[in-house]
Amino acid sequence: MCEANAFLKNGDREELLLESVDKITPEADTLVLEDIFGQRKIVRGKIVGMALVEHKIVIEELQP
Amino acid sequence: MCEANAFLKNGDREELLLESVDKITPEADTLVLEDIFGQRKIVRGKIVGMALVEHKIVIEELQP
Repeated sequence: MCEANAFLKNGDREELLLESVDKITPEADTLVLEDIFGQRKIVRGKIVGMALVEHKIVIEELQP
Repeated sequence: MCEANAFLKNGDREELLLESVDKITPEADTLVLEDIFGQRKIVRGKIVGMALVEHKIVIEELQP
């Protein structure tokens, strides 16, 4: 399986947001993440980097 | 290896842009794509969908 783990960038740190992410659908200023089990998380942010071979997606939250 | 293929959405069609994509880095209104061989493509557009288990990333070009 080729899912990735999604991390939230928080300053210099990266916090795990959702593991085993299959789908990401951007909608306006949110991202809808869905893992391989169908669990969804919605986050107000944007993708700032992806490294699929490392199974890693980095998301930055939008400030209000 | 868990790379994906990047497609450009063109109306109802999807055209292959770059195979075996490892990294994607958004910069302003462009996306820098890098495949597992280090080949890069830069496209003015945004990610509109990802399905990693299908190894698929869909990009929409920004209109000038």
